[in-house]
Amino acid sequence: MRLLGIDVGGTNIKYGVVQNGLDNKIIYKNSIITEVVKGKEFVIRKIVSIIERCKQNYDIKSIGIGIAGLVDSASGIIFESPNFPDWKDINLKNELKVVDLPIFIDNDANCFAYGEYLLRNDKTIRNLIGITLGTGIGGGLIINGKLYHGNYGFAAEIGHIKVVPDGRRCNCGQNGCLEAYSSGFAIEKKSKEIFGEKITVSSLYQMALKGNRKAIEIFKDAFEKLGIVCAGLINLLNPDIIVFGGGLSNMKDFLLIPVKKVIQKNCYKKLYEKVKIEVSQSNIDSGIIGAAYLIHSNK
Amino acid sequence: MRLLGIDVGGTNIKYGVVQNGLDNKIIYKNSIITEVVKGKEFVIRKIVSIIERCKQNYDIKSIGIGIAGLVDSASGIIFESPNFPDWKDINLKNELKVVDLPIFIDNDANCFAYGEYLLRNDKTIRNLIGITLGTGIGGGLIINGKLYHGNYGFAAEIGHIKVVPDGRRCNCGQNGCLEAYSSGFAIEKKSKEIFGEKITVSSLYQMALKGNRKAIEIFKDAFEKLGIVCAGLINLLNPDIIVFGGGLSNMKDFLLIPVKKVIQKNCYKKLYEKVKIEVSQSNIDSGIIGAAYLIHSNK
Repeated sequence: MRLLGIDVGGTNIKYGVVQNGLDNKIIYKNSIITEVVKGKEFVIRKIVSIIERCKQNYDIKSIGIGIAGLVDSASGIIFESPNFPDWKDINLKNELKVVDLPIFIDNDANCFAYGEYLLRNDKTIRNLIGITLGTGIGGGLIINGKLYHGNYGFAAEIGHIKVVPDGRRCNCGQNGCLEAYSSGFAIEKKSKEIFGEKITVSSLYQMALKGNRKAIEIFKDAFEKLGIVCAGLINLLNPDIIVFGGGLSNMKDFLLIPVKKVIQKNCYKKLYEKVKIEVSQSNIDSGIIGAAYLIHSNK
Repeated sequence: MRLLGIDVGGTNIKYGVVQNGLDNKIIYKNSIITEVVKGKEFVIRKIVSIIERCKQNYDIKSIGIGIAGLVDSASGIIFESPNFPDWKDINLKNELKVVDLPIFIDNDANCFAYGEYLLRNDKTIRNLIGITLGTGIGGGLIINGKLYHGNYGFAAEIGHIKVVPDGRRCNCGQNGCLEAYSSGFAIEKKSKEIFGEKITVSSLYQMALKGNRKAIEIFKDAFEKLGIVCAGLINLLNPDIIVFGGGLSNMKDFLLIPVKKVIQKNCYKKLYEKVKIEVSQSNIDSGIIGAAYLIHSNK
């Protein structure tokens, strides 16, 4: 019996089939473009089509779906998603009823965190914080070995924790959010201000690798802000590990060095000295695996 | 069979006896001065004496102790305590072995949060954040109905979450901590700057009640900072309730109005709209009850 995990992103829909039984191996995976511009109905049909094709080839028992935004995992309602501006209060579980299988829906960063927890398969890790650094910033919490949802399923909105009081305007409409400083969107915006032209994060990374001072400075500023929020998370939750995923986690030392420096400066020594700060080794797989195993996430 | 709860503060040692069985009623309580200046050995003998006297009068089954500072509840080690500068790496469980009863030791704000959770006895509350506002600021987390300790028992150091990057110097040696803005110590320090003389928090409160603009402004500034941290806590943990305790929680509206205003401005609407923000109705009792029931806190 197998489980299907689907990571519905703004650019691609990535999916994979895993064996039920928590051995965390993906036996089949694939990715197709999302085509958000074609609207909600089109994207939902794509998801239906993915599910049906996987059902034909594998003995699928249940489906897990990760998607960015405010998701109530209990009901399956997506209240809002930054990648899908036309999805408001959509009950995705109901929309997908036609496939006639149990469906579990959660925030994509929650799936990432849960996938990281499962993939590590390390009994000494009980409390894990996952942070996805992409165009936006997402978060997921594993507390005492369980995916934590909070009161209404909206926990771990790490991207919207305030890092500078009354600071930069964020896409969410508020000011000073972490996402307005440390996301891909924010870094590209800052690069445009500094260099006077649009530069992608990966070009900026290449520039930094070649020693471009301004590029290095942009990453340093961005990820020192992330470090401040991480220090707060450590002071609050005293976790075993913080894991970074998403495209920006490829920046490796440009990310980890400023983050660790700021954590050291802003945490109680006893709280940070044993906390692992790592970059995901399996970004995409974590999201798929976490989604696929959502069926087990509350056990 | 009864449980003894002891709240070891820098000024007073408050203690009470409760009936085992989680009915949360204090059947006897008392308070004696701590006399920190007389040193560690003296204070420990006072605690032994309290325990022995309670044992004589009540069928005490176990003892719970709450104390400010970095406490490892598993081992009973107090690594450091702001109220007891001469206590470093003290294993209080061992120090109290002479009383020959099971002893549970935890951070005082953890006891407060757990006591609030028990006293409310409300099945709809599973995730509670307790914040004690006294000379310093402490925090305690109830997550999924359990007292949360994090990896090494040091979770919920809410007073040392950074609220202003590179801001005011905190007593912990770092900069920009919440405690450097919203604690009794910080408010009295600010009052001295503004008025040129030492004014206690309770005198300042009387002045604010009489309409003194400067006094009102001092509270507003202090508690807006607290609001920023609370907004972060809500964005992160999406709790059912945040409860304030400690002396400053008596400031009522001078506390709650700025805190709620800032939360509203800095949280996702879906995350804050159902979160209760309250002041403890039973400050001292919560700490005693939480300590007494520590024996049940991991069940």
